[in-house]
Amino acid sequence: MQLDPTKMKDWEIAYEAEKNMKTVYQLGEEMGLTKEELLPYGHYVAKIDYKRVLERLKDKPNGKYINVTAITPTPLGEGKTTTLIGLVQGLGKRGQNVIGCIRQPSGGPTFNIKGSAAGGGLSQVIPLDKFSLGLTGDINAVMNAHNLAMVALTSRMQHEANYDDETLAKKGLRRLNIDPKRVEMGWVIDFCAQALRHIVIGLGGKNDGYPMESKFWIAVASEVMAILAVARDLKDLRERIGKIVVAFDKFGNPVTTEDLDVAGAMTAWMVEAINPNLMQTIEGQPVLVHAGPFANIAIGQNSIIEDYVALKLGDYVVTESGFAADIGFEKFWNIKCRLSGLIPNVSVVVATIRALKCHGGAPIPRPGQPIPKEYLEENLEWVEKGCENLLHCVNIVKKSGAIPVVCINKFYADTENEVKLVRKICEEAGVRVAYSDHWLKGGEGAVELADAVMDACRETPQFRFLYELDEPIKTRIEKIAKEVYGADGVIYMPPAEEKIKILEANPELRKLPICMVKTHLSLSDDPAKKGVPKGWTLRVRDVLIFRGSGFIVPVAGDINLMPGTASDPAYRRIDVDVETGKVKGLF
Amino acid sequence: MQLDPTKMKDWEIAYEAEKNMKTVYQLGEEMGLTKEELLPYGHYVAKIDYKRVLERLKDKPNGKYINVTAITPTPLGEGKTTTLIGLVQGLGKRGQNVIGCIRQPSGGPTFNIKGSAAGGGLSQVIPLDKFSLGLTGDINAVMNAHNLAMVALTSRMQHEANYDDETLAKKGLRRLNIDPKRVEMGWVIDFCAQALRHIVIGLGGKNDGYPMESKFWIAVASEVMAILAVARDLKDLRERIGKIVVAFDKFGNPVTTEDLDVAGAMTAWMVEAINPNLMQTIEGQPVLVHAGPFANIAIGQNSIIEDYVALKLGDYVVTESGFAADIGFEKFWNIKCRLSGLIPNVSVVVATIRALKCHGGAPIPRPGQPIPKEYLEENLEWVEKGCENLLHCVNIVKKSGAIPVVCINKFYADTENEVKLVRKICEEAGVRVAYSDHWLKGGEGAVELADAVMDACRETPQFRFLYELDEPIKTRIEKIAKEVYGADGVIYMPPAEEKIKILEANPELRKLPICMVKTHLSLSDDPAKKGVPKGWTLRVRDVLIFRGSGFIVPVAGDINLMPGTASDPAYRRIDVDVETGKVKGLF
Repeated sequence: MQLDPTKMKDWEIAYEAEKNMKTVYQLGEEMGLTKEELLPYGHYVAKIDYKRVLERLKDKPNGKYINVTAITPTPLGEGKTTTLIGLVQGLGKRGQNVIGCIRQPSGGPTFNIKGSAAGGGLSQVIPLDKFSLGLTGDINAVMNAHNLAMVALTSRMQHEANYDDETLAKKGLRRLNIDPKRVEMGWVIDFCAQALRHIVIGLGGKNDGYPMESKFWIAVASEVMAILAVARDLKDLRERIGKIVVAFDKFGNPVTTEDLDVAGAMTAWMVEAINPNLMQTIEGQPVLVHAGPFANIAIGQNSIIEDYVALKLGDYVVTESGFAADIGFEKFWNIKCRLSGLIPNVSVVVATIRALKCHGGAPIPRPGQPIPKEYLEENLEWVEKGCENLLHCVNIVKKSGAIPVVCINKFYADTENEVKLVRKICEEAGVRVAYSDHWLKGGEGAVELADAVMDACRETPQFRFLYELDEPIKTRIEKIAKEVYGADGVIYMPPAEEKIKILEANPELRKLPICMVKTHLSLSDDPAKKGVPKGWTLRVRDVLIFRGSGFIVPVAGDINLMPGTASDPAYRRIDVDVETGKVKGLF
Repeated sequence: MQLDPTKMKDWEIAYEAEKNMKTVYQLGEEMGLTKEELLPYGHYVAKIDYKRVLERLKDKPNGKYINVTAITPTPLGEGKTTTLIGLVQGLGKRGQNVIGCIRQPSGGPTFNIKGSAAGGGLSQVIPLDKFSLGLTGDINAVMNAHNLAMVALTSRMQHEANYDDETLAKKGLRRLNIDPKRVEMGWVIDFCAQALRHIVIGLGGKNDGYPMESKFWIAVASEVMAILAVARDLKDLRERIGKIVVAFDKFGNPVTTEDLDVAGAMTAWMVEAINPNLMQTIEGQPVLVHAGPFANIAIGQNSIIEDYVALKLGDYVVTESGFAADIGFEKFWNIKCRLSGLIPNVSVVVATIRALKCHGGAPIPRPGQPIPKEYLEENLEWVEKGCENLLHCVNIVKKSGAIPVVCINKFYADTENEVKLVRKICEEAGVRVAYSDHWLKGGEGAVELADAVMDACRETPQFRFLYELDEPIKTRIEKIAKEVYGADGVIYMPPAEEKIKILEANPELRKLPICMVKTHLSLSDDPAKKGVPKGWTLRVRDVLIFRGSGFIVPVAGDINLMPGTASDPAYRRIDVDVETGKVKGLF
C-alpha cells in the first residue's frame, strides 16, 4: 500500500507500516545485541539491559553524537521529533548504522490536544499504540515511586500527630516534625487533570490522614523522572532518589525520602525502568525511547543511559533536546553533557520557513486555528529578517564547540525563492544547510540532511562548557542570559536573592548545574517578543532547588506542572477495534 | 543451596530459587504455546495472547477445574495462596500437567504490613520482585483507564460551568448537567493512602476545575479491575467499560463513561492488560496471574480469561477464591462460573488447626502480636467444636455440586491427636481430607493433597446455581443468607429497600448477579462471632449497583476502599542491591 501523508492520518500510516515491521528479536540481532541483553516486551518492543551492554562494549569507541535542536518555535512547533526520525531514516538510506534517541511521551498530551510525539507523516516511530500508551511502563514506575514517597510523607505526618514520642520510638521512628505549610512535594498522575492542581487532603477523622493543602503534578514533572533522565547507573539513581526533599521541618531543615525510609522502596519501582526501550522507525532503523522529563524544571532530554547505550551500538546517534536552542540545547550542553561526560559532534538546528516568517513579522499562528494566509504567500523580507533568530541559535551551538547544521523542514507552501534565501544566508554565515522533505518522503526526503550531517561529523568539535560549576551562581546565570539569550543583564527579585545567598553558603548545593525556567517561544523572557530581542533584562523571580535531580532552577518564566484538559480533547476520538485489538484515533 | 523456610525469609527463598528458574521461553514451550502466543516481558515472565490460544484450542476439552477456598479464617489468614501453590507443586510431583491461577497483588498491601501474596515457605511463585512490583503493568493500566474517566468527568464539569450551551455545541458537546453532589466515582492509586480518602478538589481559579468533594480508592477497588476479572473477551470488556456510571445528572439520570466519550480511550489502556501473565512456582510449574479485584464490592477472584486459557493448556487447573467459602466460593460459584460457563470439579477447603481452635473458643489471634499460648498446646475440645465451621464450609461447596476436599495446612504446633480428630470428623462426614506440609517441604509435602484432589476429580460434579437470575432480588439475597451463611433471614434498612424497588423496576438491572459485601471473619455479619453462628438475621444496609462489572451489591458489612498505611510499614525495609538490581526485603 502506498503511504501518502497528504491523504492519511499519522496513525493510519503507522498502522500500515506496522504490518511490515521487524520483530524486536530481528532488530536486536541486527544491532548485535545478545539474547541476554535484549529484554522483549511483546514481539515489537524491548528493553535493553544497559549494564550488560556497557560492560561488554566498554572498550568500543562511541559513535558520532548528533543533537537535534530548533530555532525559537511558533506555538505550532517546527517538527523537531519528525526531523530527528527523518534524519535517522535518511542516514539509514545512506547505509549507515544509525540509532535515534527520543523521549517517552506523557499520557497527558496524548489524550488531550497535542497528541503523541512519535514524529509524523513518513517519519514516525512504531508501534504507535505501544509508544502512546505507556510503552513498557516507565512513566507508571515513576508515578508509583513518586506517590509512594507521598504515602510515606502523609502517613508519617498523621502518625506523628496521633502518637507520642515514646510510642513512635517503639516503632523505631524519630519525630520528624514536618511543617504542613512547607510540604514541597505533590502527588503525580500522568494526565492533564486541572481539578487536582489545588486540593485539600486528609479530611475525615483521625484515621484519615493529616488535613492540609496538597497538589498533583503531571507524572513527567516528577523529580523521579528528572532523575531517571540524568542518572548514570542504578547506584547513581538510588543516591539521587534518597536526596529528594519532600518537605521542611518546623525548624527549616529539609526532610528527604531517606528520612522517611522510603528511598529504597522507591528505587525498587525503578529497577526495570532504568533500562532504555527499543523501537523502530517506519523504515526499520532502531530508535531508543527513554525518560521524558519536563523541559523547564528538568532537562527536557531523553536519558543519559539511553545515549550511553546507543553510542556503543550505533555509528551515528541522533538525540533530541526539548524546546529550542536557547533552553533545550543549552541544557543539553551544560547539564546533560557535563553529567554524562559525552561530547556532541553536531547539532542540527531545525527551522521552518513558517517560523522564520513569524520571527520576521508575520502574525503569530495559533494552535487549533487556521494558519494565517501570510504563511501561504511568498515574503522574502520576513524570511530574511527571521533568519536573525536562526543565526542566533546557530551561534549558541557554535559556542559549545559542536558543529551546527541547519535543517529547513519543508512545508508545502514554501517557495523556491524563500528556500534559496535561507540557503544563501546560512552559506554566508559558514553553516551547513539542508532542505528536508522527510515528512512527505521519509528517509529518501532526508538524504541531503543526512549528507550534511555526515560531512559535519568529519570535523572535530572543540567542546567547551559555557560555565564551570565553581563559578558563583549569579555569574553562571548571567552568562546564560547574556551569551545564550542575548539579554543585557539579569535582575533578581528578593526571593531569588535570598535563595542564592542560602545556596552560596552551602558547599555542596552551590556547585549544582543551573537549569533555567524560561519561555521557549522567545529568546527573551517575554513569549510575545520574536526574532532576536534587544535591550532587555532577564527577570529571575525565584530560585528552586532540586537536590535529587541536582539542579539549581532559576525561575524566569511561568511554571505550570499540571496542564489542563481542553473541552474537546483527543480521548473523545480514541477507541479500540475489539476484533484486532488495534487502537484507533491516536495521533 | 538447601532452602529452609524455618531459617530463611520468604524473599530469600524466592531469590535462591530464581537462580534455577526456567526462562519463560522454556516454560511456554513446555506448555505447548506457539511463539506468537507467548509475549515475553523480560526473560522470566510473559503475557499469553488469550485470543490466539482460545482460537487454536477451541476444540480441545478443558482440564479439570479445581477451586481453592477456606474455612472462616482468623485475622492471620490460613494460607490459601500458599496451599494453592503447594497443590500445584504436589500435582507436579505426581507428574501431572498442572497450571495454577492466581490474582495479582496490589501495591498497597505489598508496601504496607500484609506483604505480597506470592505464597510462602517452599510454596511460592517467582520471580518475586516482578510479582510484587506491578508485574507487566496491568494494575497501572487499570489505574490509567480509571483516572482518565475522572479527568473526563472533572474537566467536563468545569467546561460546562464555564461555557454556555452554544459554545458547547460548537465543540460537539451536549450539556450533561452532572450533579456535583452525586459523583459516584473517585480517583484511584495503588497504595494505602488514607490521606486521599476524603479530599476537596478543583480549588484555585476558574481554570482549575470545578470545586467539589472527591475521594481516592486503592486501584484494585476500581470497577475497571472488577471488569477485567469478569470480561470474557475484549468486546465484552469494551462494552462493560462503557456502562460504568461515573455520576448522576441533576435529574437523577446516570452519566456513563460512554456519555463522556471516554470509554474507548479507557479501553485502549486495557488492550494489553487483558492478556493473562505467565509465571512459575519455585518447582517450575506454570502459574498464571491475572486481575486482582476486591473481594467485597467485586468478585475477589482471578480473571475468567485466565481460567479459560489455563483450562485449554493444563490437565489440572487450580484457581483461588478470595476470602472464605461463604463469600469467596459463593461468588466463584454464582457469579464467576455463571459468567464464564465453566463448571468446577473440586473445591479445596483450606483449614488450619489454629483456625479450628479459634472457632472452638480459643482467644482470637491478632496480626503483629505474638500468637496466644493456647495455640501452642493441644486442645481437642476446641478443635472438635471448631470443625462445625469447617463442615459448614464443606456443605457450601456441596450445594454447588463441586466435590469438596479438606486440606489441613500444617503448622508446627499441630499435635498428632488434633490432626487425627479432624481426619475422623471429615471421614465421618464423607469428605476427603489431606494433611499438607507444602510450606516446609514444597510439592513433596503436598502429594497427599494432590492425590485426594485427583481422586475427587474422578467424580462427576452435579453443578447447579444457588439461584437463577430471574428470581426476585430479595429471594436471591435470602437464599445466600440462609443457605450459605446460615442466617434466619434478612432485614433491609430503608436505603436498601428503596434501591431494590428501583432495581426491580429496571428489566436490565434486575437480572444482574448478587455480589455480597460481608465480613469474611465470621459466617455472620458480625466479625466477632466465630464457629457457626445461630439465631441471627443478616442486615442489609444499602444496595450498590455496578453497571460496568454488572453486579448488584447488597451491603451487609463495612466497605473501606482505601486502606491506611500503618506506622511501621514494609517499605521501610525494602531496598535495591544496586550492583545486581535485585530487590531486597519484599515479603
